[in-house]
Amino acid sequence: MGKATWIWYPGDYEIWLGNKVNNRRTERGTFFPPFWKSDSHYVTVEFSTVVDLKEDEEVEIRVEGLYNVKLDGAFLFGQPSRATIPAGIHALNIKVHNQATPPAVFVNGPTIKTGPSWKVTPEDLEWIDASGKVSDKSATVYSVPGSWDFDKAEDRPSEYRLPVKPMQPVTCEAVQGGYLYDFGRETIGYAVLEGLRGTGEVDVYYGESREEALDREWCETLDKVTFREDPEGGSRTMERDKAFRYIFVETAGNIALTGVSSMYEYLPETSRGTFRCDDPLVNKIWDVSEYTLQLTTREVFIDGIKRDRWAWSGDAYQSYLMNWYLFFDEACVRRTTWLLRGKDPVTSHINTIMDYSFYWFLGIYDYYMYTADKVFVSSIYPRMRSLMDWILGRTDADGLVCGRTGDWVFIDWADGEMSKEGQLSFEQVLFAKSLETMALCAEIAGIPEDAGRFGRLASDVRGKLERFWDPDRKAFVHNILDGRQSAQITRYANMFAIFFGYLSPERQKEVLDSVLLNDGIMGITTPYMRFYELEALCALGMQNTVLEEIKSYWGGMLKEGATSFWEKYNPAEKGREHLAMYAKPYRKSLCHAWGASPVYLLGKYFAGVRPTAPGYSEFEVKPVLGGLEWFDSTVPTPQGEIRVHMDGRSISVEAPAGKGTLVYTDGGRRREVEFTGNIKIEYS
Amino acid sequence: MGKATWIWYPGDYEIWLGNKVNNRRTERGTFFPPFWKSDSHYVTVEFSTVVDLKEDEEVEIRVEGLYNVKLDGAFLFGQPSRATIPAGIHALNIKVHNQATPPAVFVNGPTIKTGPSWKVTPEDLEWIDASGKVSDKSATVYSVPGSWDFDKAEDRPSEYRLPVKPMQPVTCEAVQGGYLYDFGRETIGYAVLEGLRGTGEVDVYYGESREEALDREWCETLDKVTFREDPEGGSRTMERDKAFRYIFVETAGNIALTGVSSMYEYLPETSRGTFRCDDPLVNKIWDVSEYTLQLTTREVFIDGIKRDRWAWSGDAYQSYLMNWYLFFDEACVRRTTWLLRGKDPVTSHINTIMDYSFYWFLGIYDYYMYTADKVFVSSIYPRMRSLMDWILGRTDADGLVCGRTGDWVFIDWADGEMSKEGQLSFEQVLFAKSLETMALCAEIAGIPEDAGRFGRLASDVRGKLERFWDPDRKAFVHNILDGRQSAQITRYANMFAIFFGYLSPERQKEVLDSVLLNDGIMGITTPYMRFYELEALCALGMQNTVLEEIKSYWGGMLKEGATSFWEKYNPAEKGREHLAMYAKPYRKSLCHAWGASPVYLLGKYFAGVRPTAPGYSEFEVKPVLGGLEWFDSTVPTPQGEIRVHMDGRSISVEAPAGKGTLVYTDGGRRREVEFTGNIKIEYS
Repeated sequence: MGKATWIWYPGDYEIWLGNKVNNRRTERGTFFPPFWKSDSHYVTVEFSTVVDLKEDEEVEIRVEGLYNVKLDGAFLFGQPSRATIPAGIHALNIKVHNQATPPAVFVNGPTIKTGPSWKVTPEDLEWIDASGKVSDKSATVYSVPGSWDFDKAEDRPSEYRLPVKPMQPVTCEAVQGGYLYDFGRETIGYAVLEGLRGTGEVDVYYGESREEALDREWCETLDKVTFREDPEGGSRTMERDKAFRYIFVETAGNIALTGVSSMYEYLPETSRGTFRCDDPLVNKIWDVSEYTLQLTTREVFIDGIKRDRWAWSGDAYQSYLMNWYLFFDEACVRRTTWLLRGKDPVTSHINTIMDYSFYWFLGIYDYYMYTADKVFVSSIYPRMRSLMDWILGRTDADGLVCGRTGDWVFIDWADGEMSKEGQLSFEQVLFAKSLETMALCAEIAGIPEDAGRFGRLASDVRGKLERFWDPDRKAFVHNILDGRQSAQITRYANMFAIFFGYLSPERQKEVLDSVLLNDGIMGITTPYMRFYELEALCALGMQNTVLEEIKSYWGGMLKEGATSFWEKYNPAEKGREHLAMYAKPYRKSLCHAWGASPVYLLGKYFAGVRPTAPGYSEFEVKPVLGGLEWFDSTVPTPQGEIRVHMDGRSISVEAPAGKGTLVYTDGGRRREVEFTGNIKIEYS
Repeated sequence: MGKATWIWYPGDYEIWLGNKVNNRRTERGTFFPPFWKSDSHYVTVEFSTVVDLKEDEEVEIRVEGLYNVKLDGAFLFGQPSRATIPAGIHALNIKVHNQATPPAVFVNGPTIKTGPSWKVTPEDLEWIDASGKVSDKSATVYSVPGSWDFDKAEDRPSEYRLPVKPMQPVTCEAVQGGYLYDFGRETIGYAVLEGLRGTGEVDVYYGESREEALDREWCETLDKVTFREDPEGGSRTMERDKAFRYIFVETAGNIALTGVSSMYEYLPETSRGTFRCDDPLVNKIWDVSEYTLQLTTREVFIDGIKRDRWAWSGDAYQSYLMNWYLFFDEACVRRTTWLLRGKDPVTSHINTIMDYSFYWFLGIYDYYMYTADKVFVSSIYPRMRSLMDWILGRTDADGLVCGRTGDWVFIDWADGEMSKEGQLSFEQVLFAKSLETMALCAEIAGIPEDAGRFGRLASDVRGKLERFWDPDRKAFVHNILDGRQSAQITRYANMFAIFFGYLSPERQKEVLDSVLLNDGIMGITTPYMRFYELEALCALGMQNTVLEEIKSYWGGMLKEGATSFWEKYNPAEKGREHLAMYAKPYRKSLCHAWGASPVYLLGKYFAGVRPTAPGYSEFEVKPVLGGLEWFDSTVPTPQGEIRVHMDGRSISVEAPAGKGTLVYTDGGRRREVEFTGNIKIEYS
């Protein structure tokens, strides 16, 4: 039976809530919304169920919107908040209209409870003709409703807010004619001006760095508040939340204040994934990664808390992967996935970026592998299908993707020239994997004809990747222009091909030398693509190299004073250079989700845990010390945490459920041991 | 220059406002929304213009929603309500987010004024990359903004309400333990309970007929109001407007009231079309038709004021035609057209009804012919195109339309058996005309390749109409099933083919005898299809027959006490039978727009005025007495009214503009005279 929960049309609340998130960004006091199309919820939705009751049952009815209630096709009077459903088989329908917030329903009785057993549709097509006959409803499309955890009548979905808690600054310093408050580390929340007396203006400048907060002209976010009436010692909380470590406050007029605090705003998460080892720097990198992901995990996964504060598919895809090794927050993945996709018709790539459409597909299959949730995959499958059909309508004569008018072909922020013309090998690799994902998800959604069609398309594109292979240089070239391989080789297609399993073991070895470890190939300077580069190295068993990289790259940010990880980091830069980006002195985000990738790398490739069947019903544990003396790690699964301990002589694993395979090397030989529950082995 | 007006994304305000209309229906106190999909506005919209100023200019800025203002790509601080634009060429952009009501903007300066010169888009695709470079915006689709007549800063579109004025009942009668108030004729408004004292419940029963108001169990609309505190002589206005002539009030508890009045609610319209003649019954029929159309012309054209209170395309199409001969309200036609279509993706026919999709196309071309407004046609053309593409995706192997799953094939409420199976001749006639309309509108929208394509499709379907012609019975058969003509002949395809000009003069004559005047063919009992039947007769010059029909059919309703014209009228019925429909005793609407067709017939086929080039730049006047001794009529045009007087000896026409052709018969011979301004002729 379960408990009653608020339900809505799947994706509608997620898009609506996500719109709120995407519209919270400001730039120097001015509202800054996204530049792609924002969608909206269906304004009229019908919810229904059929019940079979042993006895009469009284239900409580709560609705967000104007509504009616029908019992066996007959209206109940007005908008009833309670109803009695008589014993026997009965149809209960609730139809809701709401322009401002998503139509949502909560019904709770001894056995009747809103939840996944209900049906929902935005067009019920039910009409009673002149003769009194009910219309043909055979074309009505019903869906499983969306829900989250609004399990009480008073938990109205439209009133949901992230929780807050008070936070005090660590230091206060008189400087530049004002006061600079340091909150000790990167944070996000609502600044609170305290002990206000007098009238005048208070200017509030926020900084992720000290330099930014003290720079009135160039800091990225600020508030200006005018007090015409004396607050007489009261406080004032700012209207919008901001990201900052420092707050600099100046006053004009007769106004004075006693201090500044903050209301820290957060999505409650439990870090079910953990990692502790003998190296304090690695532990510190894990902790700061964890904090970075906590800050950027909000109603949806956003890129950075100062900027852009938007859900970007490329960024979100990485957040999902980290999330599976830290919070295992399934609902946040679902919300972000719905928001990113929006609604039909498709008018552009997700976030307008070709690669970001592909990451979106990939994230859904991962979701299924980690959670085994077929309902969500089936629910979103129609939107996967319409997006892929749109993409297939824009392929070239070879059936490959290429940048069309309005497409942003992103790949990465590269510190050098990189062509976006013609057929890009990187985009074809993502395209092939997306088509494979379509085939898998069509199967899950129970549409075998789609599975067949997308399977064939995937094979076709996979086969055509061969055109990009340069046997002399032993690598995929960057692109094909007018039918010819270009001279440039970049890391992107090559490293993705490794962990997608698109290369033979022999070619993998070749690519390792010809590309990954080749300094002649343009280097990567974003934590975004560093994520995949290190994943590729891990997939090739180069954990020792990766650990050194983690320590030097992420350790480098820590040395620069980072309290959360950054959007971009170039060790060659100095001082304020680290703060600048987009041709602006402080535009770089110093708390960016994609900076937190050590969480994923350590969980998946050191602790070595990954599902091999949906929802960890089967899983692999392939732990690697990679230069560490020992580690202790937990990896979350739907059934609880898998605990992995490894040191130079032994490995022990505790698994709450599922069929495990422990993979390790003993005396130079690869071993595989199947187990359930706990296992401990010694090795040398 | 013109004046500044509030602007929005075209169609968005119209859909939003229309949703309010469509969600006002109640049935016995319960909310009753439509069963088709309701769409919504874009929640984030960008408005822009480029100005070239001789001197600095200060503008006033008003916005509905959260917004930013950019001057030459740079944000102004916060949400400014004034801004100064310096002399020279400058780009001004305003971006607005609003979930609850449509994003809308009003900018007013000496020369800068929001209006049709601005551009609007829901996805501007403007993005500044890591290097500070602005993205490729070549795929951004801009539209001409929508507007109405909100020409002042304080006329916020979301706050628009229809005006109201107080109205008193004509009589009050103590009956059935309560009081029955008669307002003298059909009306719509908010009931006001006056002089309330005490506590208790007041039950308010509405009736379009006395019988309905007095029938607590079966009346269609009612209110129940509980007073827990003594209103101490105050009044209470009901929350929702209702349609009624009678209001019956009962009380329970200690409550008493001194009376009931109403706040009459209306769209202000001027009856620019007039018709007066020697026959008082015809004059009365005109007046009651005019009043019927006034009541059903609201924010959009609805079917009936009691029921359904929804915008239905088949009904609206007739309202448009009448409107061109009465109010000439262009804006209400536009609003209704946007609302009916909604947004992409197309998931069903308009109102789910196949014929209603076709009427929707037809109404747009008429709009253009009467108004010459190319901007609207171009603006809505993309939605015409996507609806027609959807329809073309559902044709059968012959390229003809047939009912698919979820399609409601309506045609008419017929008092007899009528097949909806296979290829229906009526639907093909509408389909052919819709394809012709597509070709014409594609030309107006400046898309010649579409014009060619739809022109070819139209010819193809026109040609295939021949398959339905039965040379023995000299008529289009009702349908073709499995490649064979069925035995049934109905009036529908035959009469539409006449006024669409799809029949040779010879066949027209044949159809007149074999169908229109043939009592063996199932008769029509709805004013809805009676409209077209009489139009067909008029087109064949049978005005005398039509006048007799008008007098007997509409005169029949007046004899039954009608104060507005009905949804359906069967002269054979008696007493309460006239009130029943849909298997309910009072469900018939006694004020239905399609009942007002005499306005159209008298204006178009007696006064005989119609545009022959867009916007009456050229027009025909072909007056016919049709059994009257004389008439005096005005017909509205964009340039003023055309006045037509006719009696047995003379015709005079006064035209404010345009090139007219007067067509009349003199001594048995057809004459055509071209004229501008005024003309008077004598004839015999």
